[in-house]
Amino acid sequence: MRFSVQVEVRHKPGVADPQGATIERALPTLGFAGIQRVTVGKSIRFEVEAADEAAARVQVDDVVARFLTNPVIEDSAVLLAPAS
Amino acid sequence: MRFSVQVEVRHKPGVADPQGATIERALPTLGFAGIQRVTVGKSIRFEVEAADEAAARVQVDDVVARFLTNPVIEDSAVLLAPAS
Repeated sequence: MRFSVQVEVRHKPGVADPQGATIERALPTLGFAGIQRVTVGKSIRFEVEAADEAAARVQVDDVVARFLTNPVIEDSAVLLAPAS
Repeated sequence: MRFSVQVEVRHKPGVADPQGATIERALPTLGFAGIQRVTVGKSIRFEVEAADEAAARVQVDDVVARFLTNPVIEDSAVLLAPAS
């Protein structure tokens, strides 16, 4: 079975986010005064081939923890669904 | 009212995605043979203050189109929900 995976990678709370801070600082001068708490993370999408959803999740959690995130400074959230 | 917003920014189909290609090329040698079609985009989160959801959506669509994406090479998907 094929599964579609989306991994959202975010900075852990307290880790500096210069991209988000720069956007947040710029927006009021560009006419958007009501926007706050801007953070910029990554959205990684891929497809994985596995026997079933449990096997896919094991493989995805492993690759996310070992290669797609830096667990010292980043959190991740995984969405997994059968590929259409 | 405050709304939580997540904007996923992806490359349009056909636009080169060197980060995704590099990850995809590396994974088989790292022991993950079943992972394909890797793409790397951005996930931008923020909070917006607006009178109601329609007003929030107008403001968000405007800021996304003008400042948070390059519409020539990027697509975006917006999720908007009342902030908890």
